[in-house]
Amino acid sequence: MFKKVLVANRGEIAVRIIRSLKEMGIKTVAIYSTADRNSLHVQLADEAVCVGGNQPAQSYLNIKNILAAAVGTGAEAIHPGYGFLSESAEFAKMCTDCGLTFIGPKAETIDQMGNKEHARQLMIAHNVPVTPGSTGFIKSADEAKEIAQKIGYPILLKAAAGGGGKGIRQVQKPEEMADALASAQSEAKNDFGDDRMYLEKVMQNVKHIEVQIFRDSFGNTVYFPERDCSLQRNKQKVLEESPCDLITPEERAKLGQIAMKAAEAADYLNTGTIEFLMDQDHHFYFMEMNTRIQVEHTVTEMVTGVDLVKAQIKVAAGEKLPFTQEDLRAKGHAIECRINAEDPVHNFMPSVGKIDYLYLPIGNPGMRIDTALYQGQQISPYYDSMLAKVVAFDKTRAGAIAKMKRLLSEMVLRGIKTNQDFHLAILNDPVFATEKFNNTYLEQHFLPKWKEQMNNETLSA
Amino acid sequence: MFKKVLVANRGEIAVRIIRSLKEMGIKTVAIYSTADRNSLHVQLADEAVCVGGNQPAQSYLNIKNILAAAVGTGAEAIHPGYGFLSESAEFAKMCTDCGLTFIGPKAETIDQMGNKEHARQLMIAHNVPVTPGSTGFIKSADEAKEIAQKIGYPILLKAAAGGGGKGIRQVQKPEEMADALASAQSEAKNDFGDDRMYLEKVMQNVKHIEVQIFRDSFGNTVYFPERDCSLQRNKQKVLEESPCDLITPEERAKLGQIAMKAAEAADYLNTGTIEFLMDQDHHFYFMEMNTRIQVEHTVTEMVTGVDLVKAQIKVAAGEKLPFTQEDLRAKGHAIECRINAEDPVHNFMPSVGKIDYLYLPIGNPGMRIDTALYQGQQISPYYDSMLAKVVAFDKTRAGAIAKMKRLLSEMVLRGIKTNQDFHLAILNDPVFATEKFNNTYLEQHFLPKWKEQMNNETLSA
Repeated sequence: MFKKVLVANRGEIAVRIIRSLKEMGIKTVAIYSTADRNSLHVQLADEAVCVGGNQPAQSYLNIKNILAAAVGTGAEAIHPGYGFLSESAEFAKMCTDCGLTFIGPKAETIDQMGNKEHARQLMIAHNVPVTPGSTGFIKSADEAKEIAQKIGYPILLKAAAGGGGKGIRQVQKPEEMADALASAQSEAKNDFGDDRMYLEKVMQNVKHIEVQIFRDSFGNTVYFPERDCSLQRNKQKVLEESPCDLITPEERAKLGQIAMKAAEAADYLNTGTIEFLMDQDHHFYFMEMNTRIQVEHTVTEMVTGVDLVKAQIKVAAGEKLPFTQEDLRAKGHAIECRINAEDPVHNFMPSVGKIDYLYLPIGNPGMRIDTALYQGQQISPYYDSMLAKVVAFDKTRAGAIAKMKRLLSEMVLRGIKTNQDFHLAILNDPVFATEKFNNTYLEQHFLPKWKEQMNNETLSA
Repeated sequence: MFKKVLVANRGEIAVRIIRSLKEMGIKTVAIYSTADRNSLHVQLADEAVCVGGNQPAQSYLNIKNILAAAVGTGAEAIHPGYGFLSESAEFAKMCTDCGLTFIGPKAETIDQMGNKEHARQLMIAHNVPVTPGSTGFIKSADEAKEIAQKIGYPILLKAAAGGGGKGIRQVQKPEEMADALASAQSEAKNDFGDDRMYLEKVMQNVKHIEVQIFRDSFGNTVYFPERDCSLQRNKQKVLEESPCDLITPEERAKLGQIAMKAAEAADYLNTGTIEFLMDQDHHFYFMEMNTRIQVEHTVTEMVTGVDLVKAQIKVAAGEKLPFTQEDLRAKGHAIECRINAEDPVHNFMPSVGKIDYLYLPIGNPGMRIDTALYQGQQISPYYDSMLAKVVAFDKTRAGAIAKMKRLLSEMVLRGIKTNQDFHLAILNDPVFATEKFNNTYLEQHFLPKWKEQMNNETLSA
């Protein structure tokens, strides 16, 4: 096992990884930007190295400085967390070149899965169902129109190298195609340096269902109970849960088989997540694969009792999977609410400032709050607005909802605006209670109603 | 189900009960003393009633004021927590007389189990093994000497109505008997108004092993995996864990059967704990039964995934047990450290003051901290010194120890002395690691060594 590991991240995920490393008796190295010098992850690590300025490009994306910090401190491996360099094939390769273990999949896998069209083609070749669309990159607007005609409008033009909602255009009719393609390509060229595009049908009334898989270097593969991440705003997940109660045990087993087939097709190592769309007949369509630990891994840990980060470290060190498929049945239901520094009443504008008072409702069975927050902390404008992940677990979904309402009602966070009340409104929504919401429900149905209600309350106040 | 419940307690257990009630959709009434007006349990409850002055006798033991608060607020039931009135048969009976449900066993059971000699006789009559000793109350020093001669010295003289270490004398030889009996009787008369005594052999090299049982009004009985509570100081538990890894599954099943037999003998309702001594050959001897929820119930919840307080409320409302014996297998190992406001370096002197800074290491899988603490809080001298219960859970005992070390290393509590470092010293002790410690190990072996080490460190500093 490694003696020392560098954590190439910040915030709650850096804290979460450092804690697992400490429990495993492994020394920890934190990296930080000048803005983060007082951060919790810096305080908790055995050593900490400043790798650059406030801007991510200067520090958390600064490959050379990070590798220098790892080599300089004698770390044997690097855990990239999520975001930043976690899905950089270049970074993974340079780790290996420096004699460091990258805790994650092989660089070639990251590269292959990072190109969404390559990933699509691999899945098609291995009989994993994908959303109807192009096969291979699109050569012209005319070709795109031809395919769209076959599969039906509306369609999505997507940059193969894309991510984070960039390089994507929705096209309603043939006349819009040429302009949309040109504009998307230009954006893709600019943002990713790669303007290759593919095309997918817009699936209507679908849920975002994802399956975490784990594979060791001996070829053992397992899948975890699915997560329902349909509640999204601005292409960002807001509230995630596991399992999806609408899916039957038979469907779950079948979905798990598809996910494992996808993982094996990619000769995957370590953990990753296959994102699917599920239509109303519960057919699943491969969307993409995330080759990192995800924000929402907590709900999977709560329902299975597994520490995914410890397993990542073990498998990266060459050990066998520390669990079998049999161990991974859901023992209940878990929900995660992402608490962000933002003001939902004013169009979710990011909020910065000092945490004047913090009360986290710790205690009682079936809960967990992953956060790097502490009282007195200054929230800086340079990074992601997520402050905390509040997770509730209970035998039943209704029980987990009741627990989450209790947790969010007790939590106190003063000095900064958060989406705490917005989450409470979702938890009290009758549609949410039925779980019959699709991946556009939050933005197109819930949010307009909620805004109206907020306006009425403001007027009547 | 009840619509409103009064919680007749304070501190972490009141908070813990209020939280379960909230999750069940039941309205909560807190009671408080004048010293506790700013306490967390008061802030979290839907309603709160001041029931008297700072001294427990004026408030938390003030039966009339508590019943008036319950009737006045329209509560239908009372949860007594632990300590205070939780094992008062009189209080349980008066609840019933006022038309309130006492969430716990019947008043007669509390009465019968509260008299330790009556409980002993009941167990003997039902073939539950007890420690060798007297049968019936002791009539004279001569009779005591006669019994002691048969079972062997040293023996313990114990007040039948006793508790909390009062009315107990150890006797090494016949010459000491008369004086010891007179002194114990005088103390018992004074403290409990009842000088009836019984006698038990002092068991050498034994572990304190206890089994929680649960029984509903339909006669369904289950037992939980045992807890090892051998680490005690001043007859107070310091660190508890579940299960005891030295006990085999066969022994566990047998012990469970004994515990259920004891519960059935007492026609027990709701949850309670049978305390046993386990000798080196793993024979179990009934000591006494606790007819309340206990401080250390958290480790049982962690290993089984059950919410014991919710189950108490359901069973008190006439529902069936919400779990079966099959559900109650230990899924791993849990340890609880009781963090007290005390100064271990100065003979565990109680510490009072203001919590200037508080950091509780919330997050990651397998942990829980039950506490009513908040930053800025004034710790008053009137009540128990326990501030927080830190609980760690992992698949293995070694994993739980590693997690607990991490948790206690991260926790920050400034403005008051605590036993945090003392717990860390226990967790690093090689004898603790083997689990081969008996119920005198902490006081007679660990503590003298630790004190010497502290003195050396002070001298060399």
